[in-house]
Amino acid sequence: MSLASALDRIDAALPASLERLFAFVRLKSISADPAYADEVRMAGTWCVAELEGLGFEASLRETPGHPMVVAHWTGPVADEARHVLFYGHYDVQPVDPLHLWRSDPFDPKIEVQDGVKVIVGRGAADDKGQTLTFIEAVRALLAEDGRLPVRVTVLLEGEEESGSPSLEPFLAAHKDELARDVALVCDTNMWARRRPAITASLRGLVGEEVTIACADRDLHSGLFGGPAWNPIRLLTHVLADLHDADGRVTLPGFYDGVGDLPDEVWKSWEALGTTEATFLAPVGLKTPAGEVGRSILEQVWARPTCEFNGILGGYTGDGFKTVLPATASAKVSFRLVVGQDPAKIREAFRAHVRDRLPPDATASFHPHGGSPGLALPWDSPWLKVGLTALEAEWGVPAVVIGGGGSIPVVGSFERILGMRSLLVGFGLDDDRIHSPNEKYDLESFHKGIRSWARILTALAE
Amino acid sequence: MSLASALDRIDAALPASLERLFAFVRLKSISADPAYADEVRMAGTWCVAELEGLGFEASLRETPGHPMVVAHWTGPVADEARHVLFYGHYDVQPVDPLHLWRSDPFDPKIEVQDGVKVIVGRGAADDKGQTLTFIEAVRALLAEDGRLPVRVTVLLEGEEESGSPSLEPFLAAHKDELARDVALVCDTNMWARRRPAITASLRGLVGEEVTIACADRDLHSGLFGGPAWNPIRLLTHVLADLHDADGRVTLPGFYDGVGDLPDEVWKSWEALGTTEATFLAPVGLKTPAGEVGRSILEQVWARPTCEFNGILGGYTGDGFKTVLPATASAKVSFRLVVGQDPAKIREAFRAHVRDRLPPDATASFHPHGGSPGLALPWDSPWLKVGLTALEAEWGVPAVVIGGGGSIPVVGSFERILGMRSLLVGFGLDDDRIHSPNEKYDLESFHKGIRSWARILTALAE
Repeated sequence: MSLASALDRIDAALPASLERLFAFVRLKSISADPAYADEVRMAGTWCVAELEGLGFEASLRETPGHPMVVAHWTGPVADEARHVLFYGHYDVQPVDPLHLWRSDPFDPKIEVQDGVKVIVGRGAADDKGQTLTFIEAVRALLAEDGRLPVRVTVLLEGEEESGSPSLEPFLAAHKDELARDVALVCDTNMWARRRPAITASLRGLVGEEVTIACADRDLHSGLFGGPAWNPIRLLTHVLADLHDADGRVTLPGFYDGVGDLPDEVWKSWEALGTTEATFLAPVGLKTPAGEVGRSILEQVWARPTCEFNGILGGYTGDGFKTVLPATASAKVSFRLVVGQDPAKIREAFRAHVRDRLPPDATASFHPHGGSPGLALPWDSPWLKVGLTALEAEWGVPAVVIGGGGSIPVVGSFERILGMRSLLVGFGLDDDRIHSPNEKYDLESFHKGIRSWARILTALAE
Repeated sequence: MSLASALDRIDAALPASLERLFAFVRLKSISADPAYADEVRMAGTWCVAELEGLGFEASLRETPGHPMVVAHWTGPVADEARHVLFYGHYDVQPVDPLHLWRSDPFDPKIEVQDGVKVIVGRGAADDKGQTLTFIEAVRALLAEDGRLPVRVTVLLEGEEESGSPSLEPFLAAHKDELARDVALVCDTNMWARRRPAITASLRGLVGEEVTIACADRDLHSGLFGGPAWNPIRLLTHVLADLHDADGRVTLPGFYDGVGDLPDEVWKSWEALGTTEATFLAPVGLKTPAGEVGRSILEQVWARPTCEFNGILGGYTGDGFKTVLPATASAKVSFRLVVGQDPAKIREAFRAHVRDRLPPDATASFHPHGGSPGLALPWDSPWLKVGLTALEAEWGVPAVVIGGGGSIPVVGSFERILGMRSLLVGFGLDDDRIHSPNEKYDLESFHKGIRSWARILTALAE
């Protein structure tokens, strides 16, 4: 059977795969720093060359920012009816503070850390290592068979670490070229070492900045304290009213469309053994703050929240000033789950604020982002294919997990291309992505390649 | 009668009095700026020379900061049984932003503004002009009579505009020399142009900075939003609970000892014509925020408050960060009226905070000031003497007003010297003290001198 031979081939070729990853990591593709623009482009060009070397029709596509890599497999495939898009990114985070790195971030090496072989370097995991797991799987399948199980298009972005400003316009302009049956995205983590996972749901986000204004200038609390409205006082009332005593959000209609977990999912999450203690103790906490009666994982992966991310008003320096400020403001965010409408939540928040203000106060609002929660249906065939292939590779059932945060590209695929995403990644929570001494387990890289070979093969069946 | 001649003498000597005020203003006695330390001392020396010239035993007294001026009238007096302390200050506020001054702040001049003659310069009102109203009155009485109506000690401070760090130790060290029957303080305003006032009550202040801490680091709201306690959320609950729907402070025992106004005082304040509109419209407000059922002047002069002077937590820069901060803090102040105990109020606030926190949160507190409210009894003989003398000079009844803020020296006199203060001043709300283009009405200066001559004379009767 060709899959078994392909897997053997992957094992045998691991040193060569690693060499390619090292070459990729050596390119300093820091997208956020304009000084590295040429190196970002070199990394994109490197990807094009690799994909062309595999027989893809690959090209670097200009954008107002860093270029995109788009590559199409136009050779033979086993199942012509199925066409997937692979997404990864070739840019990396900045490396400062550089002095905290134990070695040059762009001179990758294998180290043994706590008895485990790891690849150290900026981008070793995020997302060069993860991206290559897919490309190296494709390489093995082609070497084995001369064809791929399904038709494949590859999209590699060069601006993921700097806010993806060009992504959505690019998707919109190349819908026909990029909208496929499903997106395979390799930028997430496993549940734990040797416990693979598929991230099947992501919370959305509505961000709002609210500023409450009262008097037309700062006032002295000796002269005006009492009669004059204090915007900090009003802001605290408005915000304090957003949660009830059970930790639920009080906005009317906030929970409309929020479904309960299927029993089997709830049980599988319980079985993961995450408790209030294991989750909260590492950050110095003991008791959960979220909705009463919901487990920790449910609170993070499957329940919407309202959080206050910033608040500012009056005098906040050293010492004390008896000022009554003219304005006070807060940054408020709502994490949303699938079924909630970001626009409705935003409007409900604004109404909540306005309804609580006296005639002397005005509220102004500035929106920061609005994206819905996303989820693969629990019975999605993509999910089943992924779970089966991962269990075959790792020898344990893969976990269906949620993501508490957003991955914007997944929302963009859904909204612009009408395409679902299957999020399979081999990172670990201790990979220190975005931090000094980023690493990727050698096993993640190796078994990641094998996992994609299995998934691609299974997609054709 | 010698008072009438003394008043004539004041009128005739006004140009000479003005010359002395100009000389005084020319001394750049900015106490907050160490670069002006020599000029501050020169201003103190100038005061000593003036008082010695009048026959006082005057001296400059060293402190760890700027020196004090202490002067005793040891010559003949009409009523040996009565001994008053006059308090003023010879230092001034900084002058920046200098470019907003229309002329040199230390080159005083007479200008006509809106048809009114005013003295322009830093300290023209606060407190050089006000201080000289008393000294020039003494000069006239001595010139007329060779004696003073009562025994007089003068204390002039050089650090009033920089927090009076040396005042209390100095008072404590010189109790016998400074504790007199009553303090006459000239550092306050009239009710309005040609409407003299005595400030008979001042609100005290308890300042508290509270910091609420939850997790031991900042967290990402995608990963921890829901389960992790957010100190901003807790802070808003704690603060929002401090006022009820009627604007009253909810701390248990907060209103203990707070008396209602005597009917005649309430009526006299109502007669002043201050309405919600006249008080609030100048700062862009319409409806009062204080206790329901209390007039505006009652709210500012006779009722305690709780105000939020600053609040800070999380990310407050441009844009948005989905951070759950580790801490959030607020600066909270309570304005107190006579009868309230600052220590009890502080403790009640701390208990209020602690009672509302979950086990995962801690609160730390930093005190900023704690002074009780102060008031002359409504039937105080000092008040009567002052009111009668002021009405005689200005031709209209003087108003007994309250001060919404604190004047620390009055509390220090009461606490350390066991001495009440009679606060009579001739400033106007539009004098721009502490701001560019400070001025003092020529009429305030002239009739201020005449007023003190009358008050001093009446004190002996």
